[in-house]
Amino acid sequence: MSADLSRCSLNTATVKHASLAEAVEAAAAAGLGAVGLWRHQVQEAGAEKAARIVSDAGLRVSSLCRGGFLTASDGAGIAAALEDNRRAIEEAAAVGARELVFVVGGLPATSAPGQGPRPDAGPADRDVVAARARVADRLADLAPVAADHDVRIVLEPLHPMFAADRAVISTLGQALDLAAPFPAGTVGVVVDTYHVWWDPALEGSIARAGREGRIAGYQVCDWVLPLAAEPLNSRGHVGDGYVDFPTISRWVAAAGYDGDVETEIFNEDVWAADPAQTAATVGERFARHVLPHL
Amino acid sequence: MSADLSRCSLNTATVKHASLAEAVEAAAAAGLGAVGLWRHQVQEAGAEKAARIVSDAGLRVSSLCRGGFLTASDGAGIAAALEDNRRAIEEAAAVGARELVFVVGGLPATSAPGQGPRPDAGPADRDVVAARARVADRLADLAPVAADHDVRIVLEPLHPMFAADRAVISTLGQALDLAAPFPAGTVGVVVDTYHVWWDPALEGSIARAGREGRIAGYQVCDWVLPLAAEPLNSRGHVGDGYVDFPTISRWVAAAGYDGDVETEIFNEDVWAADPAQTAATVGERFARHVLPHL
Repeated sequence: MSADLSRCSLNTATVKHASLAEAVEAAAAAGLGAVGLWRHQVQEAGAEKAARIVSDAGLRVSSLCRGGFLTASDGAGIAAALEDNRRAIEEAAAVGARELVFVVGGLPATSAPGQGPRPDAGPADRDVVAARARVADRLADLAPVAADHDVRIVLEPLHPMFAADRAVISTLGQALDLAAPFPAGTVGVVVDTYHVWWDPALEGSIARAGREGRIAGYQVCDWVLPLAAEPLNSRGHVGDGYVDFPTISRWVAAAGYDGDVETEIFNEDVWAADPAQTAATVGERFARHVLPHL
Repeated sequence: MSADLSRCSLNTATVKHASLAEAVEAAAAAGLGAVGLWRHQVQEAGAEKAARIVSDAGLRVSSLCRGGFLTASDGAGIAAALEDNRRAIEEAAAVGARELVFVVGGLPATSAPGQGPRPDAGPADRDVVAARARVADRLADLAPVAADHDVRIVLEPLHPMFAADRAVISTLGQALDLAAPFPAGTVGVVVDTYHVWWDPALEGSIARAGREGRIAGYQVCDWVLPLAAEPLNSRGHVGDGYVDFPTISRWVAAAGYDGDVETEIFNEDVWAADPAQTAATVGERFARHVLPHL
């Protein structure tokens, strides 16, 4: 068990019920090299203290989750989104997270996570083409702010089953198209196996992302069935489902990515487990299914 | 209410608990022009009688569901798939259905609909690239059979949430790539709003499908949330969810499609409703949300 886990990162959402200190302790004890943080943890502890908790344990911050939710079509909604994302960029800089993950939001009537359908929604609320165009507009607003803070906006394509209510970016190729107008150091993309494993264009899109210098992160977790009652929480540990990790990991490595590999699992059973055991499992699965192919 | 419903077709799966005669009666009473049939109905009634039930009511058969499940990797599984699909082609010809819809199957360990995950599956069972290549091989086996019977194999891309367990064709563009080696009259595609509405490449793929003469059907139903416990049965009546029917219908019309528009809804609540009421609702929703844009 002497696998090098220095590139293995525990996204703290995987141990949702642990405090930041507990999550960091679990990751360090499992021999991992980094953690992915969430804004509420940084806000609660304060950026300086959060950064110190991580560095004192000998770990790095692989990314900060998350900004985004950019699809509002009304003036107040747009202003609120810009304000919140400016704060997210400042928090990322303060905590030493170069990569700030963006989940861009769903159709506007439903862009608040967990909100249900709106039978009374007007035609404009169903115009996914227009919602995607607004994402492009908001990125143009925010990219200069990110560049000023030396933070990269990292676009995360979400599985198409979340296109209505959570993210209108549905493929890696689409994320790259949206990133294209901006410098690669300012707007990147993350490859999350859960969201993109099914994409027939995936190999080509990963290669393109590498050529364009935009791969800002590689996140791993597995597609398991049946879907949970809340599909958002259907993810499984690497190796428990259908994702072909050797192949996708080889594509990511061939594209030149040499950064951290974050495990981010939303799953009630995983959340109920002991964080130390979860971190150990994350390390073992990384060593078995991912590391040999990087 | 003098809308022309002659292009509106009721796929009989929408009134799952009705007999073929009841489904046809409901469609005719609602003023629709066609029905989409399923193989078990044709097998039960016999092709000749099934065709007569439809034509006696003044309706057409818009399509037959379904062949496919082509991803088996072992010799016996491949032989069984070829045999079953040869029968499906013969049944389509016998019942006068020119268009035979194919759902191509998921990863091989799980290609039987409704089957759960296989934690013990080997690496080959997770190789979606290879599974897709086997679909191409089986199409090459079956295309000549279809051509001999003047039946068109109609590839149906399914929503990516079904890629593991039901269909490794996940986008319209991918379906067109798989169809490309064959004459347009032998292998076509169907545009089902439920499965493709989220696709950022949809407008271009529909235009391409039109240019290539491959649009063999247009199916409509809505994406509603939350997903049902069985996600397959999450579909809603046109207008009840998030799909932008005016826009997609315009794209399909602009691509030159002038055939039937089938409503195919898998939904426990819809199945529990009176078939006559369901057929009437199908007609009304078609007239309101689709027909003005065709």
